[in-house]
Amino acid sequence: MKPQTLPDFDAVLAAAARIAPHARLTPVLHDESLDARTGARLYFKAEHLQRGGAFKFRGACNAVRALPDAIAARGVLTHSSGNHGAALALAAAGRGIPAHVVVPEGAVRAKLELIAQAGATVHRCAPTLAAREDACLRLQAELGATLIHPYENPQVIAGQGTAALELLHATPDLDALIVPVGGGGLAAGSALTLAARAPRCELILAEPTGADDTARSLRGAARVTVFTPQTICDGLRAGIGAPNFEILLAARAAAITVSDAETQAAMRLLWQHLKQTVEPSGATVLAAVLQQPARFAGRSVGLILSGGNVDLDAIAFCARCGTT
Amino acid sequence: MKPQTLPDFDAVLAAAARIAPHARLTPVLHDESLDARTGARLYFKAEHLQRGGAFKFRGACNAVRALPDAIAARGVLTHSSGNHGAALALAAAGRGIPAHVVVPEGAVRAKLELIAQAGATVHRCAPTLAAREDACLRLQAELGATLIHPYENPQVIAGQGTAALELLHATPDLDALIVPVGGGGLAAGSALTLAARAPRCELILAEPTGADDTARSLRGAARVTVFTPQTICDGLRAGIGAPNFEILLAARAAAITVSDAETQAAMRLLWQHLKQTVEPSGATVLAAVLQQPARFAGRSVGLILSGGNVDLDAIAFCARCGTT
Repeated sequence: MKPQTLPDFDAVLAAAARIAPHARLTPVLHDESLDARTGARLYFKAEHLQRGGAFKFRGACNAVRALPDAIAARGVLTHSSGNHGAALALAAAGRGIPAHVVVPEGAVRAKLELIAQAGATVHRCAPTLAAREDACLRLQAELGATLIHPYENPQVIAGQGTAALELLHATPDLDALIVPVGGGGLAAGSALTLAARAPRCELILAEPTGADDTARSLRGAARVTVFTPQTICDGLRAGIGAPNFEILLAARAAAITVSDAETQAAMRLLWQHLKQTVEPSGATVLAAVLQQPARFAGRSVGLILSGGNVDLDAIAFCARCGTT
Repeated sequence: MKPQTLPDFDAVLAAAARIAPHARLTPVLHDESLDARTGARLYFKAEHLQRGGAFKFRGACNAVRALPDAIAARGVLTHSSGNHGAALALAAAGRGIPAHVVVPEGAVRAKLELIAQAGATVHRCAPTLAAREDACLRLQAELGATLIHPYENPQVIAGQGTAALELLHATPDLDALIVPVGGGGLAAGSALTLAARAPRCELILAEPTGADDTARSLRGAARVTVFTPQTICDGLRAGIGAPNFEILLAARAAAITVSDAETQAAMRLLWQHLKQTVEPSGATVLAAVLQQPARFAGRSVGLILSGGNVDLDAIAFCARCGTT
């Protein structure tokens, strides 16, 4: 664990200005039938409609655009199971610099395609954190490219905080904001924004029970780093980052853990009622509301739909063969 | 065939004013990757995000709101495979009057649920046009309810024309507009709007090859009324209505017929890239562009995504069992 400078809300505001010409101002969606079902007023920030199909473009774009020209010219590098890789590839292409993405075997095909389409060089490795980090170190040494960490990089965290900033502009009176947590880039960025702009708004992290290191870390006030993720939420398998945890602990964020079955049921509702193809990781936020209706009844709740890059072949609701 | 007064563009404008407090102004969606794939600039009018999940609410709401109080109080009645029934149920509930919907066996479950949820009385019948019409006549006599035909009713046609009106407000320079055609309510309403507001914009009807009565009717300049629909597009199985055909013939509308396989491929692209769960009927418009890329290359094309009420159990892209 390297020491990192923690970003602050000024960094989020700087990110908002920096990425505005490149990122999409995504819509906030609302559906009466989901409100009726939950008893809450739900405002969905549609980050699956962001460039690259996930909020990740915000952080990647901010990090890439913040690099000095001479450093940027040597390119950027990351390891990612998908959405951050695709986001970095898009951001680098937008600045006209090379991108290298280390991708573990078993990544979601739709995400790999996005990375390749954006013109990045894909480097495959074994699906372990050690293999990813080794590959990154080797490429850094070879190429002189700048590593943009998927969630610990301060510019990435600041960039992710712009999603909550936009959501608060659209719906200022939120009682709670629910975001998915994996490595914690979106979670920490959202915490910075809430502290400055909506200090009374509760921050809740939706986390798969099969990768509940953040919930356990918050409970013990100490970062859990050893665990083996077991979840269909491919975007949430990373362990919580060190600066991310520090920010979330200070923000007194709460966590709700949801089972994969709860996530799938929520995803199905989002597809059916919101008519949005949201990926499993993004559906955890609705799963959290459905699990604890009394907690959210009568309240205005923001939910960040983090991404929509699904393998339609793999994720299907197939009555014929029982696949869910 | 009863004589009908044909609606005109003034009726569309009146409908727009009448339904404005009740219907959603749906967004126009755009995706660079679909533009790159087709070579055209595609503007998708997201009517699957309309109330009830389909454009049908526009026409139903207009027809229901146009009734005098004394007549409205006795309720409204229709036969519908789904989206019009759900739309009429919602529109009637909004006005506080009863709705009766005759539904043929085999209708899409998601659509039946919407009808029931909106508080309408559902009357099941055999899946033939004769059975539907018999049931309607019987209920009309019994209840004194007003029949709101799904696509021949002039107020319904006028209401459906408001979708193209909104699309032209958002994207005024369309070279072509593609809409799905079944009974022709949306098609005829769109024709009225284009003639008044964008006379140089080509009107193209997307129709399943397995229910291509409109294409054949336009080719022969005579309405084909005898055919057996065979298509997965459950919203497009109706034959073209008499007033609808008259309007479309006068508008010199063109038709493009698409196979169910082409529709499924287009639907998959809409789910994957636009991240929208559009139903098969709504995907025919993109299938038409993909079938004839040279015809649309370099042009600005409006496409009405007509609905999003899919049975997720029935429509899946399942790699495991091959269901598509």
